[in-house]
Amino acid sequence: MTYAPMMYAPMTYGVILAGGSGTRFWPLSREAYPKQLLKIFGNQTLIQATLARASRLIAPEQTYIVTHPSLAEQMRMQLPPSPQPHFICEPIGRNTAAAIGLAAIFLRKKFREGVMLVLSADHYIRDVGRFTEAVMACRALAEAGYLATIGARPTRAETAYGYIRQGRPLPDHSPASQVIRFIEKPNRASAEQYLQAGDTLWNTGMFAWNLSTILEEITHFLPALASGLSQIEQAMGTEDEERTLQEIYPQLPSISIDYAVLEKSDRLAVVPSDMGWEDVGSWNALDEVLPRDPDGNIITGNVVNVGSRDSILYADKRVVAAVGLKDIVVVDTDDATLVCSKAVAQEVKKVVEVLRGRAGDVHRVHRTVIRPWGTYTVLEEGACYKIKRIMVHPKSKLSLQSHTKRSEHWVVVSGTARVTCGESVYSISANQSTFVPMGVKHRLENPTDEPLQLIEVQSGNYLGEDDITRYQDDYGRQVAPMEAAPAEGAPAEGGVLRARPMDSRGGAGL
Amino acid sequence: MTYAPMMYAPMTYGVILAGGSGTRFWPLSREAYPKQLLKIFGNQTLIQATLARASRLIAPEQTYIVTHPSLAEQMRMQLPPSPQPHFICEPIGRNTAAAIGLAAIFLRKKFREGVMLVLSADHYIRDVGRFTEAVMACRALAEAGYLATIGARPTRAETAYGYIRQGRPLPDHSPASQVIRFIEKPNRASAEQYLQAGDTLWNTGMFAWNLSTILEEITHFLPALASGLSQIEQAMGTEDEERTLQEIYPQLPSISIDYAVLEKSDRLAVVPSDMGWEDVGSWNALDEVLPRDPDGNIITGNVVNVGSRDSILYADKRVVAAVGLKDIVVVDTDDATLVCSKAVAQEVKKVVEVLRGRAGDVHRVHRTVIRPWGTYTVLEEGACYKIKRIMVHPKSKLSLQSHTKRSEHWVVVSGTARVTCGESVYSISANQSTFVPMGVKHRLENPTDEPLQLIEVQSGNYLGEDDITRYQDDYGRQVAPMEAAPAEGAPAEGGVLRARPMDSRGGAGL
Repeated sequence: MTYAPMMYAPMTYGVILAGGSGTRFWPLSREAYPKQLLKIFGNQTLIQATLARASRLIAPEQTYIVTHPSLAEQMRMQLPPSPQPHFICEPIGRNTAAAIGLAAIFLRKKFREGVMLVLSADHYIRDVGRFTEAVMACRALAEAGYLATIGARPTRAETAYGYIRQGRPLPDHSPASQVIRFIEKPNRASAEQYLQAGDTLWNTGMFAWNLSTILEEITHFLPALASGLSQIEQAMGTEDEERTLQEIYPQLPSISIDYAVLEKSDRLAVVPSDMGWEDVGSWNALDEVLPRDPDGNIITGNVVNVGSRDSILYADKRVVAAVGLKDIVVVDTDDATLVCSKAVAQEVKKVVEVLRGRAGDVHRVHRTVIRPWGTYTVLEEGACYKIKRIMVHPKSKLSLQSHTKRSEHWVVVSGTARVTCGESVYSISANQSTFVPMGVKHRLENPTDEPLQLIEVQSGNYLGEDDITRYQDDYGRQVAPMEAAPAEGAPAEGGVLRARPMDSRGGAGL
Repeated sequence: MTYAPMMYAPMTYGVILAGGSGTRFWPLSREAYPKQLLKIFGNQTLIQATLARASRLIAPEQTYIVTHPSLAEQMRMQLPPSPQPHFICEPIGRNTAAAIGLAAIFLRKKFREGVMLVLSADHYIRDVGRFTEAVMACRALAEAGYLATIGARPTRAETAYGYIRQGRPLPDHSPASQVIRFIEKPNRASAEQYLQAGDTLWNTGMFAWNLSTILEEITHFLPALASGLSQIEQAMGTEDEERTLQEIYPQLPSISIDYAVLEKSDRLAVVPSDMGWEDVGSWNALDEVLPRDPDGNIITGNVVNVGSRDSILYADKRVVAAVGLKDIVVVDTDDATLVCSKAVAQEVKKVVEVLRGRAGDVHRVHRTVIRPWGTYTVLEEGACYKIKRIMVHPKSKLSLQSHTKRSEHWVVVSGTARVTCGESVYSISANQSTFVPMGVKHRLENPTDEPLQLIEVQSGNYLGEDDITRYQDDYGRQVAPMEAAPAEGAPAEGGVLRARPMDSRGGAGL
């Protein structure tokens, strides 16, 4: 991805809410890889698209992404190495009021005042020009002391979105107006009525306000949040920062900013826009944003369609045959398949709940896991063995590591690997193999300019990713304290609460 | 499987038609592995169930299965080694008239006369006692010179079956009657009428007749078939047998015995039965034979169901989530997924037609291929590599072989392998590996009493199964003519047209 050329306004900070949990786009999304990281439409992931769109208005280095540390790690890999946005890491998700509050105190501590523009990482916007205009109108409102929001003019009687009823026009800020009230997701009849009336907009969840304005309103309407944020703010920059955040944040009220603050405030203004906005909230939302074939289908990948209509058919490498379907979503991935009636696409999250209660990881991770050095794909797991395809980027290496409960065979299928195994260092190329005995310190490296692909066969009684001791790592991942060596070439730390996002999933492997 | 104890009648020969093509149960069935070989319901494959059911009436050694040579090979593996039925191998499928004619001339050549009982390998029969009674009634009719058939009393207005209208009762053979006419698959209204009328039966396609009777009728009503069969019969037992069969059989008229002969004959009798018969012709036929859950679903394997009803949900190891479906068939296999509306389950064959025209083998074979020595599963294929999991039965070995275009790495994950590689013979156990260079004669053997599992990583520019030269094989598969060694322990040859069914798919590998 590349950023757009732009004119930056001083003292305007972008805050992108990107903490989504990845349940409603399962199995394409997983808990550890939610939709922000996916190319749901087009050739950019949602976080890439969000940053590219915002880059006309806010420089990446003035942009702050609020998310979970493990997702920050993944997003870093998707964004250009420089300039990179900053990450504000929540220990856990606590809804939008807490996320916005955390970003606001962080920005106040750092910059004292300025306009905070709140965007979301899971929106689709057709017309970037109109989006830019609407955001600029919001910024002007924010500077004038308003809590400004963008309202998208409805194009259909949608029941999956909240609405905003427009009040009196604000002549100094045309076409903005005051807000009469927020309306939660309506029933079909009400949605039809709003569409007819023409004075009711979709609530996009995009906002702009002065740091002081929003923090005043939070203090007024949600004192419990304000008090917790105040404790975190006091600890910022001290050695208690991390501990305080970990302790206080999970106890903050979990409530949306709309419900807790905006609906109650009298400082609200809304800017109507025809930007072609959609909240990509579930599989059937794709119908609004992707082109359909003459039978109304959206088809991706290796699909054989015999007479299906108005269906979303997503395949990857495996063949998916769809015969005589109507209004069905089929999403087939390496390790899980979803078949869902469009009418109940929201229910997909229940599948994830069921899977959480079962053995296995299919709700949490993909079969292919992306690491800073490349990827690995679990091809098969048996009682005492696990088979992975490993791809190592040119000039990249895994950590120097050892395992206590497994040995590993590596067979190179393309490229050349430099292998450290105990005291030996040697190269193996396509069609050669090597063996790493249990307990032996080893490292896999691709010193060439071509990708390295190899097959790893693990043998042992325990094959969990957490059987790993790291001695040195290029990517700043936790290494064994006694033997830690400084990371070579680790990216510069961003000005974020947590200096570096770490993989918080308990030392996930490789 | 085990056969039932029985009293055999002399001069009665069972002929089981088992040449089905495996398109309508795709992706569970494949062209090279049709439904006869699958456990569609219960714990027996359809061919096992057919033989077990027939074994009360016909000894296995008096039973002749008409099928394709490659399927005969697979069926042999599913049936007890002794006594085994015989196989009559058709070079290609030419519908039921040719298959029955071929069996009839073969039996006439061998036994001169007798009753030929024709069964099908893809039937479900709930009440084996009533089946036995009906067959015995048919046999008596056959001995009296009739072309006898079993008619199942309809239990619903089924439009997927043909019907038989009963005529005048045959008092000497109560409850049998003459036949007024055969009726092809009716529309819904006609089917309702037949159900009401009570004098119309489902045409089961199970028959009994004297060899002389059916051959006379074929000569009378289908002289083109009779003439072709006569040429084949004359070549039987001569060195021209195989060549004549290969030449003549594909040119025989492809027509059903019902349409070509039975509908025209006046020697027909039908035995009504309440045996609970179903022709398992497509996925939705399972609704009639398998138990359903309280929501009307038939669920197998790793399925998460959220509110689906009246659906057939089949998963294997991978997770299948079904959300809010109604009357949908989902069949998820290792390499292909079917999602199909029950109303058009017959259309699945169109998927197979489309796949035939595409690159790949997913219409033809499973990811796991069954061999006499064990199984192999393709885990992944890349540009220059292929990864297989190989399982070798205790005390079994693959052929002594070599490949001209690939080398192979083997990593044992459980058990112990005896490896022949060039002039060396050695053992490797779990957690050990070996390398077989391109062109080197090699053999993999499991000399132990436990299954052997290993991972094979193939490297090379061409990885087709046909890059194999066999030097010795335990299972009578074609070996390189110059170096052929006698097969050790190959099963005794059956009294069949083709002495041993060979894999006719052009030297498929291992």
